[in-house]
Amino acid sequence: MLTLDKVYRAAHTLKEVIRPTDLIYAPKINPEANVYLKTENLQVTGSFKVRGAYFKISNLTEEEKAKGVIACSAGNHAQGVALAAQRSGIKALICLPDGAPISKVEATKSYGAEICLVEGVYDDAYNKALQLRDEKGYTFIHPFDDEDVIAGQGTIGLELLEQLADVDAVVVPVGGGGLISGVAFTLKTLKPSIKVYGVQAVGAPSMVNSVHDGKIEKLSSVSTIADGIAVKEPGEHTFEYCSKYVDDIVTVTDDEISTAILTLIEQQKLIAEGAGAVSVAAVMFDKVPVKGKNVICLVSGGNIDVTILSRVIKRGLMKSGRSYQVNIELLDKPGQLKGVSQIIADLGGNVISIHHERASEGSDINGCYLRIVLETRNFDHIKQIKDALTSAGYSIVS
Amino acid sequence: MLTLDKVYRAAHTLKEVIRPTDLIYAPKINPEANVYLKTENLQVTGSFKVRGAYFKISNLTEEEKAKGVIACSAGNHAQGVALAAQRSGIKALICLPDGAPISKVEATKSYGAEICLVEGVYDDAYNKALQLRDEKGYTFIHPFDDEDVIAGQGTIGLELLEQLADVDAVVVPVGGGGLISGVAFTLKTLKPSIKVYGVQAVGAPSMVNSVHDGKIEKLSSVSTIADGIAVKEPGEHTFEYCSKYVDDIVTVTDDEISTAILTLIEQQKLIAEGAGAVSVAAVMFDKVPVKGKNVICLVSGGNIDVTILSRVIKRGLMKSGRSYQVNIELLDKPGQLKGVSQIIADLGGNVISIHHERASEGSDINGCYLRIVLETRNFDHIKQIKDALTSAGYSIVS
Repeated sequence: MLTLDKVYRAAHTLKEVIRPTDLIYAPKINPEANVYLKTENLQVTGSFKVRGAYFKISNLTEEEKAKGVIACSAGNHAQGVALAAQRSGIKALICLPDGAPISKVEATKSYGAEICLVEGVYDDAYNKALQLRDEKGYTFIHPFDDEDVIAGQGTIGLELLEQLADVDAVVVPVGGGGLISGVAFTLKTLKPSIKVYGVQAVGAPSMVNSVHDGKIEKLSSVSTIADGIAVKEPGEHTFEYCSKYVDDIVTVTDDEISTAILTLIEQQKLIAEGAGAVSVAAVMFDKVPVKGKNVICLVSGGNIDVTILSRVIKRGLMKSGRSYQVNIELLDKPGQLKGVSQIIADLGGNVISIHHERASEGSDINGCYLRIVLETRNFDHIKQIKDALTSAGYSIVS
Repeated sequence: MLTLDKVYRAAHTLKEVIRPTDLIYAPKINPEANVYLKTENLQVTGSFKVRGAYFKISNLTEEEKAKGVIACSAGNHAQGVALAAQRSGIKALICLPDGAPISKVEATKSYGAEICLVEGVYDDAYNKALQLRDEKGYTFIHPFDDEDVIAGQGTIGLELLEQLADVDAVVVPVGGGGLISGVAFTLKTLKPSIKVYGVQAVGAPSMVNSVHDGKIEKLSSVSTIADGIAVKEPGEHTFEYCSKYVDDIVTVTDDEISTAILTLIEQQKLIAEGAGAVSVAAVMFDKVPVKGKNVICLVSGGNIDVTILSRVIKRGLMKSGRSYQVNIELLDKPGQLKGVSQIIADLGGNVISIHHERASEGSDINGCYLRIVLETRNFDHIKQIKDALTSAGYSIVS
């Protein structure tokens, strides 16, 4: 059973490995609230997961420790377990689906874990891990549905109360629900007036649906850029704790998550992964009632693949009017490109790329097709450029 | 004159506005040293500059405060002065060259400063600022060559000693030299055994050259992605302090800076601007003798334009073998693209973009040209793909 005693014991044990991550005031996230960020993206291994994993391992018997632990994860849990095992001086074996991003595999290896790549998807790797557990006697470290793991994540709740005594609300990402279960249990037990809100991706609303319907439900598929919280089914324990202690769970879209990631980069100089940024997205886009309140967004992790980061930045720039792609159909005669360039230059647009091609299928035999990507100031600026091109007789296709 | 008394007074005054930024252990930056990062990129306004500006303003007379302050900057100093003035309840006018990035202008405005866009380059804006100072009686806030400003930056030295008592070496970015003057003065006065190293961009080595030659020298031009330290000429005070207190000043290339920025993103989840990352680049690429030492890299700021960030990420991926652009000349017959795709897929390369074009000037009339950008694991992986393509008879142009 989860007790406050256990959470305090976890906090004491964790002092050996974790850093007490900073709470950073971030008023620009939502000017109508006093927003603070709990920066677990700056935690060792780049996410909070090491807390639960290390506390879980610390409670194993000597016999269990001698045999080692096994986990199944392509992400933060893998790195958390790997570091926790390394610091505990025990062996860790991590099963991953063979399509897992190279960067995550390398990071997990760097903490000394053994890697077992399993053909297939997450479920195949999970089954392989259970099989190896049974064959070899390893202890399986569940990513969320385990009360020691939950107690470890709950230590964040203790830190929050110390860092901001008069906090009114805490907003927490929800995947399997381990993090929010620990944090909500701790906060509600110590100070019941604090509101705790969960956030899921709109493409993976397993806990939202389950809590809403009053029973655990499994999604047939999930789809979101927040891969760290793309979980099909809540755990039994976490479902129970969420039902009991969490005030509300809301959802955010991938576009909202992208904008939150970009905002964290520009305003706060912090890298968050999709799962880590959903709490910020929820407060930015008014999904939770925090007007006038002292609210903490838990930024749970920062392990985002840089190629995905690149895409998120690009999309974020488009969505906020600072990048604009225009397709123009031109007559294929000299001077057309110059005319377009002139208009763009006069209005202060900065050309990023140009693609100029003749007579594609859809265009007139004498026509040609120009695709320009521009750096722009905002949507007004884009409109100015569009209007100027149209007035000058250029035909904007899209 | 700069005194320890002044630095302590600055620290006391600054408590009202700045956050005591975290010192983060970052052993992966250079496995042969104990590396820590002083995260002034997480300072309010995204850089250390607010320290010097606020302390300078706090020392103005009531009459001077009533008239307001003026500064010339397209970057961190502008935001530092703007926030410092806002928090002091006085007026600030910031002169910027009219080509300054929109994002920086907007950020400066957001702190309540008035903006004066001046046609031309930095020097034009600077002259305009001096002219307005003379006409209107504003106090000019120099970005670095002012002993109050230097004392403000020196408060970082006090924090470092508190955060890591047994620090052996501190590595500091150098532009005009205000930051390193304050930090080196403070550290060397309190604990002379600490080594202080400066870092400049190889394309803007004004302080390196000046200190080396024993006199202030002005560069005719500067060129680096680290725009925050692209300064043509050191100040009189800062030249003197650097000559006296700094152990060595080294340089890093733009490629080294890009790699450092990418490493900070991937390993530490932190956004640094070019100027902020030169200290990390110097330690990563062994430009300073810190083997076995407790070394602090001062990450001075994080105000990087996201479009530049996008480019840095792209370049960093290429430079570390995780992105590869290959140009192949093919015969223009069916099945060629499939053949190439097959080889890439078999070897686990992930295609980002393909550009396929017929008969460009340089190629055979029947030829066509294929440019593929791939996500790769490392340089070995790239070599495998190249070798496989060549063995299969495809001609790699570059």
